[in-house]
Amino acid sequence: MQAPPRVLTVAGSDSGGGAGIQADLKTMLALGTHGMSVITAVTAQNSLGVQGAWELPVEAVTAQYRSVVDDIGVQAVKTGMLASATLVGAVAGLLAPLAAPVVVDPVGVSKHGDPLLAPDALDALRDRLLPVATVVTPNLPEAEQLTGVRVASEDDMRRAAAALLAYGPRWVLLKGGHLAGPATDLLTDGATEHWLRAPRLDNRHTHGTGCTLASATAARLAHGDDVPTAVAAAKEYVTAAIAAGFPLGAGIGPVHHGHAGTVTWPTPR
Amino acid sequence: MQAPPRVLTVAGSDSGGGAGIQADLKTMLALGTHGMSVITAVTAQNSLGVQGAWELPVEAVTAQYRSVVDDIGVQAVKTGMLASATLVGAVAGLLAPLAAPVVVDPVGVSKHGDPLLAPDALDALRDRLLPVATVVTPNLPEAEQLTGVRVASEDDMRRAAAALLAYGPRWVLLKGGHLAGPATDLLTDGATEHWLRAPRLDNRHTHGTGCTLASATAARLAHGDDVPTAVAAAKEYVTAAIAAGFPLGAGIGPVHHGHAGTVTWPTPR
Repeated sequence: MQAPPRVLTVAGSDSGGGAGIQADLKTMLALGTHGMSVITAVTAQNSLGVQGAWELPVEAVTAQYRSVVDDIGVQAVKTGMLASATLVGAVAGLLAPLAAPVVVDPVGVSKHGDPLLAPDALDALRDRLLPVATVVTPNLPEAEQLTGVRVASEDDMRRAAAALLAYGPRWVLLKGGHLAGPATDLLTDGATEHWLRAPRLDNRHTHGTGCTLASATAARLAHGDDVPTAVAAAKEYVTAAIAAGFPLGAGIGPVHHGHAGTVTWPTPR
Repeated sequence: MQAPPRVLTVAGSDSGGGAGIQADLKTMLALGTHGMSVITAVTAQNSLGVQGAWELPVEAVTAQYRSVVDDIGVQAVKTGMLASATLVGAVAGLLAPLAAPVVVDPVGVSKHGDPLLAPDALDALRDRLLPVATVVTPNLPEAEQLTGVRVASEDDMRRAAAALLAYGPRWVLLKGGHLAGPATDLLTDGATEHWLRAPRLDNRHTHGTGCTLASATAARLAHGDDVPTAVAAAKEYVTAAIAAGFPLGAGIGPVHHGHAGTVTWPTPR
């Protein structure tokens, strides 16, 4: 048996299993890769919100990363919740010399409004992590937080994406789901522009959508896709996962990572 | 979409993705359940061994458990690395009133000989956790550590299983893989005896075997199987996963959680 592509998530743990490294690892398995994880913080979390969070010391984050990258190696990395300015800086420093593509999901607050990033970490995210990103995947509130650009139209999305590109990521995937109408995302590297449209789904069980899209993109990049191909495949996967999202607990349930009915390993697509 | 059965792992994190909660969550997805996790410790680990471990405070373990169980609920629980006597006791206390079945993998040392349980935690494991177990799944070194019974034959396996049953678990699955010959396990509740035999596979990439067997058993119990049926299905899954285990890094690679080619959700088997 040959080893499948290896994908690493650097993110927080969601005890409820719908978001964070749990969503990432499930997505990576479903998309035919070997998922690995550097845990930055452990949250007590369920369908109603985040009840507690314990940040890992920076040496634990560094040690996990070195264990994985120095022995096993990675074909792609995804970052999610990085909790503090210290961890954002440390992770950016670890990723800077890496040849493999890096997908940065600039996680700011949870679906319930719980903060997942310290306020003083925003500068570190902008100035240190975005420059090492192959793709950064903000939703509209995150893009506004990072750039100050208020987005109310597709033209505003172009302006916000340009402002993000100025910080140095190779590509921006700006997720327009918070606008009315179909869920339209803009993928751009400044030279080309891809509008990805999917029908708005009538399903409130969308916990983990952002984590899943970013890790699906990383998984496809690890298989060798170029960025537009990887993002399109990831959007297709997450749209089907949202359509199959299911209730869990009293609040917002998760997207369904096993929706495709097949783990398409070793030859996906 | 209806929610699938929910399964909770209470265990350590393996950054390399082959064992610990990573193996558990992958197994749970592959077997058509929604996997959730209470992280007890974060390890920096790869194919060569364990390079570091950070134990979570007991209040973090309790908070994760309460978030999951009080809101989402569980149909089965699996426990793995519990690191210290304090955590073993706390987890036993949380599980005692639970109606759902509990599979206890009494993790002592890693495949490389790294200790994953403090020496003074052995008493807590024996006296507090085993009594709340529906099934306990030791390998031969763990059974010897727990009971003092040295196992060199199938008759010795019977004696060790009886000694384990005296501590209060409903069933013992004693894994005989460390004996020569075919990989023979003994499942017994004291009244009935099931010998599970599988050919010995010529594959050194077996990292995560124990975690995978225990969480596959929990997943099948969550689907409603009785214990002998669940264990037989889990053994079949893990045997195929070992057969498809792949190299990763310079040491021992993981079993292949996606080997079946299908995520059989929502109707496995």
